[in-house]
Amino acid sequence: MLPLVALLMSAAVSYLGPPGTFTYEAAVAHFGPKAEFVAQPTIEDVFGAVEAGSTTYGLVPFENSNAGTVSATLDRFLTIPTNSNVQIVDQHYLPISQCLLSNSESLAAVTRVYSHPMGFNQCRQWLHRHLPNAEQIEVASTAKAAQMAAAINESRSAAAIGNTAATKFIDIKLMARDIQDHDGNITRFFVLSHQPSKPTGTDLTFLYFTVDHRSPGALHQALASFADHGVNLTKIDTRPTHRGPWNYYFFIECTGHQHDRAIQQALQQLQQHSVQIVVLGSYPMYAEHHLSAP
Amino acid sequence: MLPLVALLMSAAVSYLGPPGTFTYEAAVAHFGPKAEFVAQPTIEDVFGAVEAGSTTYGLVPFENSNAGTVSATLDRFLTIPTNSNVQIVDQHYLPISQCLLSNSESLAAVTRVYSHPMGFNQCRQWLHRHLPNAEQIEVASTAKAAQMAAAINESRSAAAIGNTAATKFIDIKLMARDIQDHDGNITRFFVLSHQPSKPTGTDLTFLYFTVDHRSPGALHQALASFADHGVNLTKIDTRPTHRGPWNYYFFIECTGHQHDRAIQQALQQLQQHSVQIVVLGSYPMYAEHHLSAP
Repeated sequence: MLPLVALLMSAAVSYLGPPGTFTYEAAVAHFGPKAEFVAQPTIEDVFGAVEAGSTTYGLVPFENSNAGTVSATLDRFLTIPTNSNVQIVDQHYLPISQCLLSNSESLAAVTRVYSHPMGFNQCRQWLHRHLPNAEQIEVASTAKAAQMAAAINESRSAAAIGNTAATKFIDIKLMARDIQDHDGNITRFFVLSHQPSKPTGTDLTFLYFTVDHRSPGALHQALASFADHGVNLTKIDTRPTHRGPWNYYFFIECTGHQHDRAIQQALQQLQQHSVQIVVLGSYPMYAEHHLSAP
Repeated sequence: MLPLVALLMSAAVSYLGPPGTFTYEAAVAHFGPKAEFVAQPTIEDVFGAVEAGSTTYGLVPFENSNAGTVSATLDRFLTIPTNSNVQIVDQHYLPISQCLLSNSESLAAVTRVYSHPMGFNQCRQWLHRHLPNAEQIEVASTAKAAQMAAAINESRSAAAIGNTAATKFIDIKLMARDIQDHDGNITRFFVLSHQPSKPTGTDLTFLYFTVDHRSPGALHQALASFADHGVNLTKIDTRPTHRGPWNYYFFIECTGHQHDRAIQQALQQLQQHSVQIVVLGSYPMYAEHHLSAP
């Protein structure tokens, strides 16, 4: 039987909008075209909608294979209310083709480019070669960038870096395809929900912890907790704690489900070396994650 | 006797310009007001000027205590040519006061805000409270942001987040002071040069390495190389390698000088677990780094 809260919630999916973002494309690929999709203006708002129960699921970008981890997503994990059971329940991998979208007559006419920071990050070499003097203006999403570049007073001199899917929703044309600097460009998305995932046998778990920074070697001892129980790390990230300079949250992704005995033992040992541990969820590992441990 | 290359080089200091940036303030505080300063448009260009020998020193932002590590600086360390001996030779800590600079009549008149991504990152709450609807436009530096906001056709409706020092160089007024979200906001800068630093007895060393990602527990074994020789880690960061998805460079800061026996032994052991190791420099540890190990 579903808990009452699930019955009262809409089964809709919040995503980083507007329609035409890469997150939109990932949401449609993951949940199918018939699901109900709700565009949110920021990553923070996707978390907020799932926490408030206004949508059952949320989809947020987590990591791009070339540009790295999305810090806004890491930071928002830190502010999930402790009384909320929102967590990561699944993931989705989307191959990314960055495109230059514009209604200007030619590349030579483009004097400003709009994109999400990740868009600029992934196309630095192409921009340096083809649009070295264009002003770069960062906006909240690649589809928002397409909207800005399509605005009437911009249309002769502006372009956007984004998803060709945006041309379905916004009156703007494809000018150049596959302009990202590196091949094999994949973005990984997390699915958020109140309903935790069941173990599949090949899962990953994401968590963060802090360590007593006055204790020498504390990070190494913390990581030994995983190694000692055969739990492999597949990713490590840091963010400042805001509790004084040079004091960090460590985000760890490791192999296994949080219900596995090995992970539970690792977390028990980790408690001796850390001030705070928060498990952010477990989810199936897919073939795209072709990495057993870093 | 100075090596010939040092005699031929100017003793000038490249920094992330234009004048009035926080990096400018750090450069003046570190080298004194009588040094010759050369503004560079990007972090990449500061590295480039030191590599080319057009200035002896370069100053780049490395880390803010609230917003985290500057990824452009991490990424540029990866492309220092192998035949260059450019390295980190010193550091400088600067307390940061973010200010709203504007020539508009009131806060209510401000519809767009310019800043560096770090400026927006450090003032998110203030912006959410005071300018929730203003468009945020990211530019290459806080002083560039002040220049943009001071431009004639922007002056009635635009503001910049940046350093009050910018008002000395740019025709723009201070509208609000100390708008950063967290107190104790400090930015740490690295001094780059060809001439390595001598050990002082309390030094730090910065380096990066990659590990064979098919070997389980490789990161833990790599970090054990430091712990086994009593070398404490004070920071860890990751960046994607671009050599296939989910494959990372690990950036490590540790206690000690690269000429110390303990670090040399740690690096020898690390070589058994890593594909590539590059030492980026050693430099004195200061009181602001009040952290013995994470």
